[in-house]
Amino acid sequence: MAVVMKGAETAARMKKSLMEELTRLKQRGVEPKLGIIRVGTRPDDLSYERGALARFRELGIAAQVYEFPEDVEETTFFSKFAKIDASADVHGILLFRPLPKRLNEDKVRRSIHPLKDVDGMNPVNIAKVFAGESDGFAPCTPAAVMEMLAGVELAGKSVAVVGRSMVVGRPLAMLMVKRDATVTICHTKTRNTAEICRAADVVVAAVGKAGMLTSAFVSKKSIVLDVGINVDKNGNLRGDVDYDAVAPRVSMISPVPGGVGAVTTSVLASHVLRAASLLTA
Amino acid sequence: MAVVMKGAETAARMKKSLMEELTRLKQRGVEPKLGIIRVGTRPDDLSYERGALARFRELGIAAQVYEFPEDVEETTFFSKFAKIDASADVHGILLFRPLPKRLNEDKVRRSIHPLKDVDGMNPVNIAKVFAGESDGFAPCTPAAVMEMLAGVELAGKSVAVVGRSMVVGRPLAMLMVKRDATVTICHTKTRNTAEICRAADVVVAAVGKAGMLTSAFVSKKSIVLDVGINVDKNGNLRGDVDYDAVAPRVSMISPVPGGVGAVTTSVLASHVLRAASLLTA
Repeated sequence: MAVVMKGAETAARMKKSLMEELTRLKQRGVEPKLGIIRVGTRPDDLSYERGALARFRELGIAAQVYEFPEDVEETTFFSKFAKIDASADVHGILLFRPLPKRLNEDKVRRSIHPLKDVDGMNPVNIAKVFAGESDGFAPCTPAAVMEMLAGVELAGKSVAVVGRSMVVGRPLAMLMVKRDATVTICHTKTRNTAEICRAADVVVAAVGKAGMLTSAFVSKKSIVLDVGINVDKNGNLRGDVDYDAVAPRVSMISPVPGGVGAVTTSVLASHVLRAASLLTA
Repeated sequence: MAVVMKGAETAARMKKSLMEELTRLKQRGVEPKLGIIRVGTRPDDLSYERGALARFRELGIAAQVYEFPEDVEETTFFSKFAKIDASADVHGILLFRPLPKRLNEDKVRRSIHPLKDVDGMNPVNIAKVFAGESDGFAPCTPAAVMEMLAGVELAGKSVAVVGRSMVVGRPLAMLMVKRDATVTICHTKTRNTAEICRAADVVVAAVGKAGMLTSAFVSKKSIVLDVGINVDKNGNLRGDVDYDAVAPRVSMISPVPGGVGAVTTSVLASHVLRAASLLTA
């Protein structure tokens, strides 16, 4: 049976260094604060928001939600966004996306202060992740995958990333290359994804299709990370990996729920502390 | 024996559409112009500059060289750069890099008008290439590789990119993903590069090491593109591929010189025309 990579364990490890960093900041008179900007009331957003608020409360880091109605006027939204972005009290901004189509999301992404862009949506940070530079912010989910793998030597290992989204697959591939892994990016047009995954040391599923990664995609040595968050017809959370079939056949596996998803808010917190440190340096 | 993919043939094909686009622009009263900004007199830069000027002369597109001494003062350089960047007469800017360390290259890259950034160095364009968006500018060399492969179906094909630089390897990997190829990024820490390349449909060598890609890296079906430009001790140009050994064993191969390198200036021209079109729309 595989070693189960529990997100709670990674989060607990991270908590120690987060608390130390928070203490250092407070000693310098800095009160780190996250601004969460939400337009509308999508259930996914509300659920993530609850998780983030709980994590920040647990860590003792301030977080404030700025809620806008679904039909907010563009000029109102932009002027308020700019005000939050410019506020000296707010060190990091999490914007729930996608925005309603009426609002120019590209413009928001370009306008956010790169040092407050704790979920890595500004082109400056996207370019830094692409280039493998360390001083930018990667999106929280792929960064959480890397935290889960903090204790695993990746240099020279083969990694199959299944999925090519800008939220997970592409940035994750680059974070893996930065750790000197040999990365293959698989996607819907890939012909032999199962074969590629089976031959890889590490497999990451970031597809958004419940149970698509079956036991045909793994081998005994596989380390499997599941980034999928799918809700089945009974309202239960399911990953992209067919866990029951895969877990007995691999060396390590992250579950859903309780895997990567339990680490993203810790990454968010670490980004807010880094932002606060950089902005007040 | 392999089909030799001659850069001149791709350049000739591109010339037709470039001339049509140029005619359209001139009919609208637009005189496209490239500004080449060079600090110092590095032989590589001068050689590329000569090639670019010859190509632009052949196509009837204006190009002007702005030369700065190696020891130019930072404030002087930045104010002149800003002036060229702001000039309505200049539609595209090619900046030779790396700049001398005294000059803040990052600042220049962030400051260049994204629509004039015809060699894709601004974070906005880097992020667009990363995301697979079509409305940005990719760096000319990886874009030239894609032009060489314009007639080759890449969807579902496996591509091995050897090299992970921001000038070739990384952007090329993303341009390949955009064409729906399954891409593996290999680099110095990859353990079985030969094996990965041998199994791939397309192999691109972008390493900067003369002759490193030997016949052990290819199979009969391989399509091999050589991006290497290395000068041997006799002053001859050599690619990253051991051409004499590899050519008889693969299906298609691009030579050095006369391969990808002969297409980059055509890509540069196409980017300048697109920039001129966008800037005057």
